[in-house]
Amino acid sequence: MSDSSELTTFTGWAATAAGAPLERYSYDPGPLGNDEVEVAVEYCGVCHSDQSLIDNDWGISHYPFIPGHEVVGRIVRLGDQVRGLEMGQRVGIGWYKGSCMHCTSCIEGSHNLCRTVQPTIIGSNGGFADRIRSHWAWALPIPAGLDPAMAGPLFCAGSTVFNPLVEFGIKPTDRVGVVGIGGLGHLALRFLNAWGCEVTAFTSSLSKQDEAKRLGAHKVVASTDTDALNAIAGTLDFLLVTANANLDWSAMLATLRGKGRLHFVGVVPDAIPMHVFELIPQQKTMSASPVGSPANTATMLEFCARHQIVPQVEMFPMSRINEAIDHLRSGKARYRVVLDASQ
Amino acid sequence: MSDSSELTTFTGWAATAAGAPLERYSYDPGPLGNDEVEVAVEYCGVCHSDQSLIDNDWGISHYPFIPGHEVVGRIVRLGDQVRGLEMGQRVGIGWYKGSCMHCTSCIEGSHNLCRTVQPTIIGSNGGFADRIRSHWAWALPIPAGLDPAMAGPLFCAGSTVFNPLVEFGIKPTDRVGVVGIGGLGHLALRFLNAWGCEVTAFTSSLSKQDEAKRLGAHKVVASTDTDALNAIAGTLDFLLVTANANLDWSAMLATLRGKGRLHFVGVVPDAIPMHVFELIPQQKTMSASPVGSPANTATMLEFCARHQIVPQVEMFPMSRINEAIDHLRSGKARYRVVLDASQ
Repeated sequence: MSDSSELTTFTGWAATAAGAPLERYSYDPGPLGNDEVEVAVEYCGVCHSDQSLIDNDWGISHYPFIPGHEVVGRIVRLGDQVRGLEMGQRVGIGWYKGSCMHCTSCIEGSHNLCRTVQPTIIGSNGGFADRIRSHWAWALPIPAGLDPAMAGPLFCAGSTVFNPLVEFGIKPTDRVGVVGIGGLGHLALRFLNAWGCEVTAFTSSLSKQDEAKRLGAHKVVASTDTDALNAIAGTLDFLLVTANANLDWSAMLATLRGKGRLHFVGVVPDAIPMHVFELIPQQKTMSASPVGSPANTATMLEFCARHQIVPQVEMFPMSRINEAIDHLRSGKARYRVVLDASQ
Repeated sequence: MSDSSELTTFTGWAATAAGAPLERYSYDPGPLGNDEVEVAVEYCGVCHSDQSLIDNDWGISHYPFIPGHEVVGRIVRLGDQVRGLEMGQRVGIGWYKGSCMHCTSCIEGSHNLCRTVQPTIIGSNGGFADRIRSHWAWALPIPAGLDPAMAGPLFCAGSTVFNPLVEFGIKPTDRVGVVGIGGLGHLALRFLNAWGCEVTAFTSSLSKQDEAKRLGAHKVVASTDTDALNAIAGTLDFLLVTANANLDWSAMLATLRGKGRLHFVGVVPDAIPMHVFELIPQQKTMSASPVGSPANTATMLEFCARHQIVPQVEMFPMSRINEAIDHLRSGKARYRVVLDASQ
């Protein structure tokens, strides 16, 4: 049973300086907003974005703050104006936890594109804690049949790679590539296999070849092997880049067939040189997108429950959070780390 | 009446060296192909691509060759296997004049993306001549009610800017910008106004402001005025770049609303730095495309006839071709030059 008592302080694990280990930390959440739900955290995934903000990689971190934005837990308090949710219901919260609800994007259902959208852990405290709050529209019920211990990473990693499949109308008859087989990419392989596509995994280390196939890839290509890329030139409808690395983008573009799309969900460090003459003859497109809207994320959850798709996770007790973050930093996580708040 | 006799040589105006004036030139066209039509040229537009190939700007010109790829004329000979065309019919031929007809792109109706598509004036002689040949699929009938003297530029400039409106599903409710008000851009303004959109013209010289409005723009913005660009940030659904210039692409991207597209039909000289973080938050897209397929070009011709859309042209007799090309080079053409072969 969740504890539905009113807490005057929330307690969790905070980043206090760039790169430092997280420390126990309490804060006063203030009064519950009319549109807010309060969630008692059961599980929280650890994402590369947590690590980037802990380390101040983006130069926007303000300390102290509690990271964690792949939350699963039970609703323990409901604001007066909350719609469609109930006490005790199990929900998830991801990269965003609020939006204005009245701009054109919100009204169109693209709340994720709201220009005042509230990131869960930027200027706010996240889910490596006992409690978290979010706007009701951003707390999505976990469907029956989906393991709550595994569901957290779906709210950030999962939604980020599922979203473009919906947004760009990927068809089961399409040939789709996934660049980078990590936290995001391994979920993309599972989604696309269930979506009915021909799935090609691009990985820098062919040591992941067997694993990529087990995750749903029909083919595996070394992303740094120019000959291998040339061999599949002109074949892919859609190429989803989940890697945060600088690659040979001309060779990647060349793998696309006419009207193909090279789509980014990872923040590639350097500017990608877009040569118009590489796009014109075959009418190619380059694009990028954030985590999905509440509607697309709910569609993903339903799809995951139907196809029994969950991330491959490694569980750590919340009390061993710094060990979990170090494991992520080492690059050895296969493929997503989840913290269990009950331990 | 067109002369339907069999000519053993075709005669026109050829480029003989980079930048040199065109000279009278004859060549043997060989036997008529089974799938080819032969057209007696009545009019031919002069395009910037003609000038680029005359001047060897792209380093791919082989001399001598006859430029000209915005042809209007009458069919005077039909190959044995020609489908759907008749002797004496008035047709137009544009940037491409043949494709394989059996690859996936051709079978899908995207013959313009065929990987062996035949450009009209690369490795082949074009329409600054008495006769030209093309594959039947690429010779499109001029609809009744469309002035043939004006129709030539529709087959390259027109089709190039009309094509993305069809391909990317531009809606009458969209807010669309056009960057560059020249041979392509002025037609884009006319198309988009008739399409029902809110049309914003971006021009480097506000001296074209009144003309842009007369051509169909509702608003005009100076493309080099950062304040003016900032004032319309987040408002456009689609931004069509017809200019072959290096501009402030970050400011241009910022004019787009969520899910907006920055689309190129002009060969911008330098690589455009695509910063993924500029595209992710609002799910933006960058893309480029060539001239349209035969099907999209035919749709354009029907739309032009219905809305009485033609380019604004300056006519020159074919005999004064070098004067016409110099006029184009001067940047003073308003907005498209057409040669009259009867003179």
